[in-house]
Amino acid sequence: MDRRTFLSGAAVVAAGAASACSQDTGAETAPAAPAVNRNRTRRLRMVTTWPTGFPGLGSAAERTAQFITEMTGGALEVEVYGAGEIVGAFEVFDAVSNGVADMYHGAEYYWQGRSPAFNFFCAVPLGMTAHEIMAWVEYGGGQQLWEELSGQFGLIAFQAGNSGHQMGGWFKREVNTLEDFRGLRMRIPGLGGSVLRELGGAAVALSGGEIYQSLQSGAIDATEWVGPWNDLAFGFYREAPYYYGPGFHEPGSSLAVGLNRGVWDSLPTDQQAVVRAAARAANNQSLAEFTYQNGLALRTLTGEHGVQLREFSDEIWREVGRISEAVVSDTANADPLSRRVYESYRDARRLGRDWANVSEAPYYQKREMVLGR
Amino acid sequence: MDRRTFLSGAAVVAAGAASACSQDTGAETAPAAPAVNRNRTRRLRMVTTWPTGFPGLGSAAERTAQFITEMTGGALEVEVYGAGEIVGAFEVFDAVSNGVADMYHGAEYYWQGRSPAFNFFCAVPLGMTAHEIMAWVEYGGGQQLWEELSGQFGLIAFQAGNSGHQMGGWFKREVNTLEDFRGLRMRIPGLGGSVLRELGGAAVALSGGEIYQSLQSGAIDATEWVGPWNDLAFGFYREAPYYYGPGFHEPGSSLAVGLNRGVWDSLPTDQQAVVRAAARAANNQSLAEFTYQNGLALRTLTGEHGVQLREFSDEIWREVGRISEAVVSDTANADPLSRRVYESYRDARRLGRDWANVSEAPYYQKREMVLGR
Repeated sequence: MDRRTFLSGAAVVAAGAASACSQDTGAETAPAAPAVNRNRTRRLRMVTTWPTGFPGLGSAAERTAQFITEMTGGALEVEVYGAGEIVGAFEVFDAVSNGVADMYHGAEYYWQGRSPAFNFFCAVPLGMTAHEIMAWVEYGGGQQLWEELSGQFGLIAFQAGNSGHQMGGWFKREVNTLEDFRGLRMRIPGLGGSVLRELGGAAVALSGGEIYQSLQSGAIDATEWVGPWNDLAFGFYREAPYYYGPGFHEPGSSLAVGLNRGVWDSLPTDQQAVVRAAARAANNQSLAEFTYQNGLALRTLTGEHGVQLREFSDEIWREVGRISEAVVSDTANADPLSRRVYESYRDARRLGRDWANVSEAPYYQKREMVLGR
Repeated sequence: MDRRTFLSGAAVVAAGAASACSQDTGAETAPAAPAVNRNRTRRLRMVTTWPTGFPGLGSAAERTAQFITEMTGGALEVEVYGAGEIVGAFEVFDAVSNGVADMYHGAEYYWQGRSPAFNFFCAVPLGMTAHEIMAWVEYGGGQQLWEELSGQFGLIAFQAGNSGHQMGGWFKREVNTLEDFRGLRMRIPGLGGSVLRELGGAAVALSGGEIYQSLQSGAIDATEWVGPWNDLAFGFYREAPYYYGPGFHEPGSSLAVGLNRGVWDSLPTDQQAVVRAAARAANNQSLAEFTYQNGLALRTLTGEHGVQLREFSDEIWREVGRISEAVVSDTANADPLSRRVYESYRDARRLGRDWANVSEAPYYQKREMVLGR
């Protein structure tokens, strides 16, 4: 994923001074058989960083909204706007902060320009896997730090989706040694891109719609995107047949729903509970959906399209890992809160690693040893 | 976990003919500031297979109930009863099927006596990890099969918790070869116990409260329980210092909430949505909580109590794996629906394995190679 991915064509359409939420007393918009008498319908506008109908990432936004609307029998009706419909993809943070919209759905690392601490609430290179970051945010102090961070911008945010592991990307030629990264022109955003630059490569910024053509023309030698499900749709395999996994830069990207703090505070306790549960339910569904769909798409890529799976060598992993640790630590030096978030994240990753090392990590290895390919 | 775990002291207390749900028109039991005018409060009784206050597994039940109550502003009020309070731990399935209670929270493999197909909706040896089983149930056809199965008993059930990976257990002496399992007296329930018996060991059934004393007296040589978080509380490390992981028998146990089908059908659509989202949110929280707490407890076990971590040898894994595959396949031969559930589960595990093999599985290995111990 990339903050520039959706920038093309996603100009700020119209923010205006429209009231962010409307309350229609006595409105009759009830679905079949609601349990409760509602004497008002409140509409909340959700702006998102995803184009309308974008599978996986966009589905998590739509599901969060749908759960809220369904659970309240329409008393709280969330209307979803794709990138560019009210504001551009990367204007949603400001729009909700300023009250132009009520809530956003996106990936927190898009706001790293506001504070590098936001990276940790989405993904960092060599970071935590999906259930590890869930553990940190929900039970390891992450949510409290997140609220302190978002509170500086008049926002409150919660986990509301997870892409699971993201792949290392598509390459026109095999990369076997560190030397192969020198001069490599690869579309890879954010902190992952910083790592590539340290390796001597050129991290190129391209929107999703520009990638395929750039591969075809030879303007780039490689690209990362998300995972098999989303990558298959773009057809990258036709231009760059080597598909590298695992990736190092986004090992379990968390998505988020953020609300204007005033809107959040104005919600009665039962509707706050609905929003919290909707976000958690969407988080659960998202990880489940990506896991299943990635499995299906990987089968299509390798079985029908002859995609060659490759793994970065240990030499590459060691250097990428060393650089990643330095890049992530450096980025957290910007301010004291970023440092505290980094340290909390790092401590939780340590706990997660210790547990993974005696449980899922070796279990995967043993299961394959027994069942074979 | 074990169906006998909570049997001691969990006799059927009183089922009676009490109406399962009460509707008090005009009741005033509202918490602070509900958004909606309720003209009735409906109470649902949740019976559980867990003792009151049981951490982790019991927390998932209480959280599911709490989410439902909070989200409806008390309009739907779920009262949780621990094992033995209304009916015994393993009577909850019948109690809800018969309408004595409205809903249960437990682990579906407890009902394997009704149909072996129930095993697949909790855990089977060499089976799927937590997010893999989430993927299958939510997106791979699992939920539809589950509804067909539960429907035969007048029930509908949903995922509502996951323990994450469960450990291989505590051993008084190291087990290095297959020979070491011959005659080994180990507390291990269900299909895992069947595997141990095939290895020449003696699978012993003991309730949770009996395990420690049995280890101390030498009545058993080893025991499994759940994972570091729950195992630490029992102090097994004092009697059996070798802690084996990963385990083979419960690689990501799914917990469930089951409702009487008539009660479910009587719920208006918004309250059905609340129950579904509460279960999914509880599922999310449970995996997060186990992941975090297991990491903390493992640190205490190894850092403060000198616990020795051990891994079963490849020789052991290969034989355990071979037997596991046969035991699971055999158990599914009981009836056509069990066979269909098995085949669907097996196909989803294949997808999950293919995806894990290029993503999380090698990522864990590479991350450790880079970061070291």
